[in-house]
Amino acid sequence: MRSESRFPVRYAETDQMGVVHHAAYVPWLEQGRVDWLARLGVNYAELERAGIFFPVTDLQLAYRRALRFGNDVRVETRLVRLASRKLTFAYRVYAAGDDRPAALARSVHVAQDAQGRIRRLPSSLYETLLAALEADT
Amino acid sequence: MRSESRFPVRYAETDQMGVVHHAAYVPWLEQGRVDWLARLGVNYAELERAGIFFPVTDLQLAYRRALRFGNDVRVETRLVRLASRKLTFAYRVYAAGDDRPAALARSVHVAQDAQGRIRRLPSSLYETLLAALEADT
Amino acid sequence: MRSESRFPVRYAETDQMGVVHHAAYVPWLEQGRVDWLARLGVNYAELERAGIFFPVTDLQLAYRRALRFGNDVRVETRLVRLASRKLTFAYRVYAAGDDRPAALARSVHVAQDAQGRIRRLPSSLYETLLAALEADT
Amino acid sequence: MRSESRFPVRYAETDQMGVVHHAAYVPWLEQGRVDWLARLGVNYAELERAGIFFPVTDLQLAYRRALRFGNDVRVETRLVRLASRKLTFAYRVYAAGDDRPAALARSVHVAQDAQGRIRRLPSSLYETLLAALEADT
Repeated sequence: MRSESRFPVRYAETDQMGVVHHAAYVPWLEQGRVDWLARLGVNYAELERAGIFFPVTDLQLAYRRALRFGNDVRVETRLVRLASRKLTFAYRVYAAGDDRPAALARSVHVAQDAQGRIRRLPSSLYETLLAALEADT
Repeated sequence: MRSESRFPVRYAETDQMGVVHHAAYVPWLEQGRVDWLARLGVNYAELERAGIFFPVTDLQLAYRRALRFGNDVRVETRLVRLASRKLTFAYRVYAAGDDRPAALARSVHVAQDAQGRIRRLPSSLYETLLAALEADT
Repeated sequence: MRSESRFPVRYAETDQMGVVHHAAYVPWLEQGRVDWLARLGVNYAELERAGIFFPVTDLQLAYRRALRFGNDVRVETRLVRLASRKLTFAYRVYAAGDDRPAALARSVHVAQDAQGRIRRLPSSLYETLLAALEADT
Repeated sequence: MRSESRFPVRYAETDQMGVVHHAAYVPWLEQGRVDWLARLGVNYAELERAGIFFPVTDLQLAYRRALRFGNDVRVETRLVRLASRKLTFAYRVYAAGDDRPAALARSVHVAQDAQGRIRRLPSSLYETLLAALEADT
């Protein structure tokens, strides 16, 4: 399963090079996975209230073409790996109307409880995620 | 009492106008009041662990001259009003080496507990703040 | 004329108090005025390419109720004052579904050229803005 | 050659998990390389004025231990690869007083001119960087 997130570049996200600053993409990816989970019927705010957190342990970004103020951003998000305590998402970031990716990214997450201890994903959530992972292939 | 905070402009804080984006000043003011409290011997992280929070209720900024990447920023912070449940800080932001303020600001805070209820400042903290307020005049 | 901007709270916009950090509102207001201008048929990215910039000279925010991750934000934007070289916008920020404002704000802007010199608004733009200002009353 | 950058965690950099948000590290790394260049006598603001830009093309971060408000951050920066048009920096991020890294990172940069065209590093700058790279081994 693949989700799409869309939003305009914010002026505050540009830098003096006249393009979007590379740090601005990181919250976009986060929005991408929140929307991906939402499309699956999983509300991340509720997950946290239930004591399940997905902190980022690894993040990789490859920047291919600059984005600018005036662009609408489109983030495509997919789950690409799933283990009992670990998830990996992959992302493609585009300027709307351009089918060449502006950036490719990947993030790895562990499942934690509110005390920061690594924990297994609840089995119902694991099954839901697994079905979505397989729907992708 | 007046405190000074110093740090370089971060590249990420610039925008495509080639100057520091106006939103970037807001965390600087926050650092200013954290440093002001620290100078008084009050650790804001510990205050929060003790259940005392100072959320911002009002914020005013007047931008006078642009700041740029390459500038070192100097923030002067003072407490200017104190009530049993409320504090007002005033700030002057400078580019180091220029005595004309780049920005003037003011923030109002209420004292809250961890549940978000307005509360009185503990009397020892109130007395400490009052002494610092008066040392300023 | 009044415009509405809508977007979800980003996780990155929260802080350890568990609510949206007060600095996060500032780019939202900026998005509000970009959307307000767009509704009027004015593209801010194109304005800048034509050498017209609207830097913020004054900013005021009053925070009334906390916003949280999971909230959708709605920003209402209006132009409230217009002079030959100066514009003032007013904003109301809401959590979607709650008609009590979470924050009220106001920003003042001067018209500048690319070299940072204050300039008059081009007369056609001034007339367009004036019509929108009057449509508001 | 290795440089060190030090600064306090900003409250605005925390998120509702109670720790520093993973996006906040990205401007820290940028500050790390600005400081590394400064230690070498190279002013990044001046480089840009001379038409030399180092946009990020690849970024990798591994998060090992959470950082918190109240921590002082220490970023160690080194140049680890150098080619005629390309640089790679490596970073270690620590909470001051803890010798276990909180995060490890790496960024790749191409040299560009003001029009965004890839260009060779000027030979004097290349030699300076090469000397610093070799001083590291």
